[in-house]
Amino acid sequence: MSASIGVWLVGARGNVATTAMIGARAIAHGATDTTGMVTERAPCANLDLPEVDSLVFGGHDVQDGSVVETAERLAERNGIPDRATLDAVRDDLAVIDERIETGTARNCGQAVEELADGGTDESLSLRAIVGDIQDDYERFREDNDLDRVVVINVASSEPLPADPEKYDSIEAIERALDEDEPLPASSLYAYAALAGGHPFVNFTPNAANALGGLRELADREGVPHMGKDGKTGETLMKSTLAPMFAGRNLRVRSWEGHNILGNKDGEVLEDDANKAGKLASKGGVLDGILDEDLHNRVRIDYTPALGDWKTAWDDIRFRGFLDTDMKLQFTWEGSDSALAAPLVLDLARLLAFADEQGESGLQPQLASFFKAPLGVDEHGLSKQFGMLEEYVEVHVAQPTAAGMEDDD
Amino acid sequence: MSASIGVWLVGARGNVATTAMIGARAIAHGATDTTGMVTERAPCANLDLPEVDSLVFGGHDVQDGSVVETAERLAERNGIPDRATLDAVRDDLAVIDERIETGTARNCGQAVEELADGGTDESLSLRAIVGDIQDDYERFREDNDLDRVVVINVASSEPLPADPEKYDSIEAIERALDEDEPLPASSLYAYAALAGGHPFVNFTPNAANALGGLRELADREGVPHMGKDGKTGETLMKSTLAPMFAGRNLRVRSWEGHNILGNKDGEVLEDDANKAGKLASKGGVLDGILDEDLHNRVRIDYTPALGDWKTAWDDIRFRGFLDTDMKLQFTWEGSDSALAAPLVLDLARLLAFADEQGESGLQPQLASFFKAPLGVDEHGLSKQFGMLEEYVEVHVAQPTAAGMEDDD
Amino acid sequence: MSASIGVWLVGARGNVATTAMIGARAIAHGATDTTGMVTERAPCANLDLPEVDSLVFGGHDVQDGSVVETAERLAERNGIPDRATLDAVRDDLAVIDERIETGTARNCGQAVEELADGGTDESLSLRAIVGDIQDDYERFREDNDLDRVVVINVASSEPLPADPEKYDSIEAIERALDEDEPLPASSLYAYAALAGGHPFVNFTPNAANALGGLRELADREGVPHMGKDGKTGETLMKSTLAPMFAGRNLRVRSWEGHNILGNKDGEVLEDDANKAGKLASKGGVLDGILDEDLHNRVRIDYTPALGDWKTAWDDIRFRGFLDTDMKLQFTWEGSDSALAAPLVLDLARLLAFADEQGESGLQPQLASFFKAPLGVDEHGLSKQFGMLEEYVEVHVAQPTAAGMEDDD
Amino acid sequence: MSASIGVWLVGARGNVATTAMIGARAIAHGATDTTGMVTERAPCANLDLPEVDSLVFGGHDVQDGSVVETAERLAERNGIPDRATLDAVRDDLAVIDERIETGTARNCGQAVEELADGGTDESLSLRAIVGDIQDDYERFREDNDLDRVVVINVASSEPLPADPEKYDSIEAIERALDEDEPLPASSLYAYAALAGGHPFVNFTPNAANALGGLRELADREGVPHMGKDGKTGETLMKSTLAPMFAGRNLRVRSWEGHNILGNKDGEVLEDDANKAGKLASKGGVLDGILDEDLHNRVRIDYTPALGDWKTAWDDIRFRGFLDTDMKLQFTWEGSDSALAAPLVLDLARLLAFADEQGESGLQPQLASFFKAPLGVDEHGLSKQFGMLEEYVEVHVAQPTAAGMEDDD
Ligand SMILES: NC(=O)c1ccc[n+]([C@@H]2O[C@H](COP(=O)([O-])OP(=O)(O)OC[C@H]3O[C@@H](n4cnc5c(N)ncnc54)[C@H](O)[C@@H]3O)[C@@H](O)[C@H]2O)c1
Ligand SMILES: NC(=O)c1ccc[n+]([C@@H]2O[C@H](COP(=O)([O-])OP(=O)(O)OC[C@H]3O[C@@H](n4cnc5c(N)ncnc54)[C@H](O)[C@@H]3O)[C@@H](O)[C@H]2O)c1
Ligand SMILES: NC(=O)c1ccc[n+]([C@@H]2O[C@H](COP(=O)([O-])OP(=O)(O)OC[C@H]3O[C@@H](n4cnc5c(N)ncnc54)[C@H](O)[C@@H]3O)[C@@H](O)[C@H]2O)c1
Ligand SMILES: NC(=O)c1ccc[n+]([C@@H]2O[C@H](COP(=O)([O-])OP(=O)(O)OC[C@H]3O[C@@H](n4cnc5c(N)ncnc54)[C@H](O)[C@@H]3O)[C@@H](O)[C@H]2O)c1
Ligand code: NA
Ligand code: NA
Repeated sequence: MSASIGVWLVGARGNVATTAMIGARAIAHGATDTTGMVTERAPCANLDLPEVDSLVFGGHDVQDGSVVETAERLAERNGIPDRATLDAVRDDLAVIDERIETGTARNCGQAVEELADGGTDESLSLRAIVGDIQDDYERFREDNDLDRVVVINVASSEPLPADPEKYDSIEAIERALDEDEPLPASSLYAYAALAGGHPFVNFTPNAANALGGLRELADREGVPHMGKDGKTGETLMKSTLAPMFAGRNLRVRSWEGHNILGNKDGEVLEDDANKAGKLASKGGVLDGILDEDLHNRVRIDYTPALGDWKTAWDDIRFRGFLDTDMKLQFTWEGSDSALAAPLVLDLARLLAFADEQGESGLQPQLASFFKAPLGVDEHGLSKQFGMLEEYVEVHVAQPTAAGMEDDD
Repeated sequence: MSASIGVWLVGARGNVATTAMIGARAIAHGATDTTGMVTERAPCANLDLPEVDSLVFGGHDVQDGSVVETAERLAERNGIPDRATLDAVRDDLAVIDERIETGTARNCGQAVEELADGGTDESLSLRAIVGDIQDDYERFREDNDLDRVVVINVASSEPLPADPEKYDSIEAIERALDEDEPLPASSLYAYAALAGGHPFVNFTPNAANALGGLRELADREGVPHMGKDGKTGETLMKSTLAPMFAGRNLRVRSWEGHNILGNKDGEVLEDDANKAGKLASKGGVLDGILDEDLHNRVRIDYTPALGDWKTAWDDIRFRGFLDTDMKLQFTWEGSDSALAAPLVLDLARLLAFADEQGESGLQPQLASFFKAPLGVDEHGLSKQFGMLEEYVEVHVAQPTAAGMEDDD
Repeated sequence: MSASIGVWLVGARGNVATTAMIGARAIAHGATDTTGMVTERAPCANLDLPEVDSLVFGGHDVQDGSVVETAERLAERNGIPDRATLDAVRDDLAVIDERIETGTARNCGQAVEELADGGTDESLSLRAIVGDIQDDYERFREDNDLDRVVVINVASSEPLPADPEKYDSIEAIERALDEDEPLPASSLYAYAALAGGHPFVNFTPNAANALGGLRELADREGVPHMGKDGKTGETLMKSTLAPMFAGRNLRVRSWEGHNILGNKDGEVLEDDANKAGKLASKGGVLDGILDEDLHNRVRIDYTPALGDWKTAWDDIRFRGFLDTDMKLQFTWEGSDSALAAPLVLDLARLLAFADEQGESGLQPQLASFFKAPLGVDEHGLSKQFGMLEEYVEVHVAQPTAAGMEDDD
Repeated sequence: MSASIGVWLVGARGNVATTAMIGARAIAHGATDTTGMVTERAPCANLDLPEVDSLVFGGHDVQDGSVVETAERLAERNGIPDRATLDAVRDDLAVIDERIETGTARNCGQAVEELADGGTDESLSLRAIVGDIQDDYERFREDNDLDRVVVINVASSEPLPADPEKYDSIEAIERALDEDEPLPASSLYAYAALAGGHPFVNFTPNAANALGGLRELADREGVPHMGKDGKTGETLMKSTLAPMFAGRNLRVRSWEGHNILGNKDGEVLEDDANKAGKLASKGGVLDGILDEDLHNRVRIDYTPALGDWKTAWDDIRFRGFLDTDMKLQFTWEGSDSALAAPLVLDLARLLAFADEQGESGLQPQLASFFKAPLGVDEHGLSKQFGMLEEYVEVHVAQPTAAGMEDDD
């Protein structure tokens, strides 16, 4: 794809955003390979996607600081990126830093409000905030001569709105904006994107584009969008393992998941209000695959010594033939950001592609990327991969004469 | 299905065979449910399969003793079955005991020859042995008025033949029988079954029907058959997890599997010759899914204190984005026999069904049941489940008027 | 020791008490051995302790039902005891059932009050309750011609008193009794025992004899006593491992302990008030051994599928030479009652012995049995074992001429 | 201690040696702290030991290359040391490199002989080799004005001698040297040290000073020495946990230890001959603590992806009260070199101290440092720590007037 694509990251100075940008630029400089990117292997590698090294980055954040500083801290604390990679991309990150604007922390809960520098200007109306966001998107597009801007939310976890059903129609959303109801920031970013025709991805557990009124908006505007909550670690494992138990008719009686992590995301999740959304999307993945009377608990605890290395310990008790009680336990240790970042790039590419193809509304072929895929009931990973395969089969680029010559 | 089906178990006094028979009879008496049986849930539950409680059992073994004794020992050592279940089926097992014949331990390696009571009569020609086996199958069918006999090999692991390619044609097999070449017992049972038109399943890692000449024989005789090596524990996990790593473009660099178990199978596997086949089928499951340069080691150790409870510890190191090294470790603790037994019943039912449908040769829809599915390259569990789903979709019984009334 | 010893168990129909009584009687009948009993190996085996088979049991509980019923349930759900052992002791348990009286659930928190049958008679004064308890102890002694009665609290976890320092003197305790202040039931049982000259052990995390005024009472009355909270699983591991890290100058930065269990104790601990005491004694064991700035979290979750099998998963991060971050993770799976019960018998024997020797007050030689050993700062298991060894060395029976002849 | 101490490391370009030297120099430069050093905390911190930053290093190796290169490789592959630390010590290491001599690989087994550069000059007599070694020690002492040289063997694992009892007397050793019998290199280094009056430590599983004749030599020459095989990971855990099971009278039935590692030591241990010694000292630690009929297996496998990070997985099955089978599993992940290196420094200091005190022969107070402590039956870690504590109590420096002034 030769179009020029911009990727606007909400939460741009966070770990996931920064790691995604480091990776894209490191790939551009040949300083790392594309391991971990779904779009770089079959089936997606056959699509005519925008090149990773051509992606242009910008974004919002609410904390001062810079992407370079976040990158330094990640290198220092977790060793990812390593020094050589960081050196290779430092200048590029500094350029990106110029394109990061101050966003809004409105209705993000106390934990986020506390970390937001400059606070949240309570005197601004939601309409004014949304207007500012839209201006930021537009300026990014214009300044960088972009054909398309994909907006991806990788900001901190917010509390879920108390009554999301309230916002089930475009009208309800518009009224909420007019009347300064407590719409969370993620939904303001989503509204601004969808209303402006920008494809939108919600990588967080936040409400964002999950509200019915925003889905309606996307359909009306003909914009592709998807979410929510990137599936990177324990939940990825769950969606992989649960179908095995189901397919073998083994009855899972209890699934205990205990996550410990030590990064900023973990710190924000210490706040029970902010954690609620995460627990909801993590827990839900077993629904529909396993028995309903399953004892299913997820714990997320903040353990500073771990830094960005999340450790999940899961204990699964299942009953088999002749009432035999058996068990599986696993320990997953991954760098959360290194797992999430390549998916952010994948989603940017796949959503730009969908937009180019004129698709609009929810994009179910992307279900495998999310803990709680909007509009998709299937939680089994392999079946979700199958949806992506089918999509690719339909959309795979017909090799042009020129393309074939290139292969020589 | 109203046909009367016989299930002939080679290794009938072993743990897997005994547990399968206990389970079938316990289900018949309402003493347990069908948890663990693949055929009792979607999609297979929609097929018109023979009822579990109508299956008639018989078999070969080379050790003295009885199914009742094995059942007592299992109850004593592993608590499976529990006492109440054992009491419910003891009489039925005693009846089955009457139908168990002495088989052959020819070319089964030293470990098996040592446990065979009465030894292996070295004076018998292979032709004579095969003839005896065929007579046993026939008598079983006649004595019990059976429409169909499915032969399932659940005997001990044998050493693999030194040069299996030698037996790539029916002619080679026939000559080997004529000249008393060292064909393993499993292949003698398989030959006798296929030549006699009996569907055959190899649940063990043994050569059995995997020899090219026997596959040819099955095709010629129009008999359905499948194998090899039931996929019940660690390998089930591997075939579940490996596609996740592949689909996410995560590069698995090392997969260490360490199995400890304490039952008779474990004791036989102490012998390196007998273990070789098991290691081959356990190791192979990652091929074609993961990188070829993967460090892939499987260990199986005999630890008496565990009894039939096998514990597998797997340590998986994978590399992700930005060269990040991450890991997954799991511990699986299952009763091997309780995992295998319901699959034996599933396979009996599905093979009887295939035979009734007039199918012949290898049955790829059964790939998900096996560590090394004959004739199938796909090792990913979900895709294998998909093959079974598709098969069922094609074969699902059209509801008859009577059937629909039953639903009222 | 030829004296006749009674063991009065508060919480007699609970899992720990019942398992202790099953074990003692099974040993008496030769139906099991003494594995798990500290007093049956060096060094204690050299003391002249009361014989296990001579112990006479009685106790209090607040739930209806019977020890036989608890034993049946344990056999059914956890397989411990097995059927044969249960059969061997059923009649003895029925006899013990006759000696179980209704105790008090006063100030035990909502969770316990809900399970207490008949409720707590709120009209009774604390003095009246204590009087009833004392009468029960006395009648038990008289009816059974006992030389000595050891009272052991194995009742459910209670909430800790809001302000335990208030009860730092005998006078404060007496006043609290007079004025019906909210002294917890455990302290009422302890008061009754100590005032009556009965050695007392608190195997629970409850306040019981830990209150300063009760310690004073024990000293004044010359009664030996000890507590609190039996050290059986995860905490046993902690007190074993922490000294290793300390001795090697490895800096433990984080110790996460996640316990799941499914028995009645677990159900009561679901109530945060009742859980607080348990968490306090579990957490405290690392104090004084490891760094003070250690991140030390303990979670206890109720997971019905586990029954009495508690699973603890601990994740320990430590820093070594050259700032190297390393880790240890363990999974402990034990039957809580089978771990606790033999210690109850050990404590009964050792406390009867101490009483016979004329010792009084806290018994520090018993520190190794407790999560929070009263009056002992040393939490390292080996050092605590050393205290027991030294005690035995001092007290070991001088072989008499007769005794020496026995050895021939 | 103001004496000037030299530390001669056999295997100086190996991981353990290099990490020890990096650490000592990093401490000298204030670039790291002394975490992981036993001598830097109670009780040893009270002894008047040589300062870490005053230790002078030299050594033997049989591979070309340099300590700086090893350090670079360690930083690259394992991240230990980190770049900043490496930069701080690089020049010091380069100076040390000047003091490294070519040693002997005689009778070290094929795996070591293959890695030795320049091969083993088979024409040299053992007497000539020993003479060269002694010259190297002496020149090191003289060139660096050292009061004392401690020789520490941290070379690769060798095969054990076929018949070690043969070398039970000084005479047998002398004859073996005269007649060029296959004494392993480790014993040549040990002989040269002890005969020359240099304290000697064997940190490897090799025979070295364990031979009876060399112990006699040390006694005759009045030289302190100790070994063998540093206790750093899984075995440290075993010697910590086994006394817990024993003290609680829990019967360990099976202890499976599965170690995977990916460094050079692991590569050498791939060779079964070289592995035998390691397995012997790893296995032996449970002897004398636990039941003799214990099923006790240790596996060590080479897994390149792990580098210097060793992972041990242990599965322990134990039986408790009422024949209850329970289990403990642990996973230990440590950097082998970072665990071993500080102990090498500790041993150098403690042995220099012992030598200064005029002690000779085996040094049992150092038992806690070794998997197979020479002359000590006690394998329990805490009791071994106790031996060190007692030693320190006896030897603790009486504060001199000068010393007290220093504290001001
Ligand atoms: N890392 C993973 O594996 C993973 C997986 C799924 C979902 N997520 C989600 O991704 C999000 C980002 O994770 P992270 O580890 O990068 O967290 P982070 O805390 O490092 O980064 C979040 C960034 O968002 C900024 N921010 C907060 N509120 C904002 C707002 N209203 N507008 C603009 N910026 C805002 C913060 O200042 C911070 O820089 C989280 O919601 C997390 O739950 C992460
Ligand atoms: N249990 C599982 O999860 C599982 C999974 C895959 C494969 N398998 C395979 O199933 C087989 C049976 O396992 P098991 O646990 O029941 O073993 P087992 O040792 O309990 O039983 C094997 C039985 O086969 C008999 N036998 C041996 N050689 C024979 C021969 N030549 N002819 C007739 N009988 C013979 C033995 O006497 C024994 O009774 C093994 O090959 C095992 O590898 C088991
Ligand atoms: N099992 C272990 O390993 C272990 C270890 C340390 C401490 N403990 C403690 O031992 C106690 C008993 O544990 P369990 O597993 O037997 O619990 P359980 O719930 O099975 O038994 C407790 C019994 O105490 C009775 N009870 C409650 N309040 C009472 C009261 N005020 N007076 C008299 N009886 C009362 C209950 O009715 C019940 O029968 C708990 O406090 C537990 O925390 C157990
Ligand atoms: N790291 C640990 O935790 C630990 C614990 C206990 C014991 N050990 C032992 O310490 C030793 C060193 O371990 P490492 O990880 O440093 O290994 P390594 O392979 O990195 O280093 C060994 C060094 O010894 C050299 N060498 C081999 N044979 C020699 C000889 N005959 N003379 C002189 N040099 C020789 C090699 O060339 C190499 O440089 C091994 O024997 C190991 O078993 C290590
Ligand atoms: Na569009
Ligand atoms: Na007394």
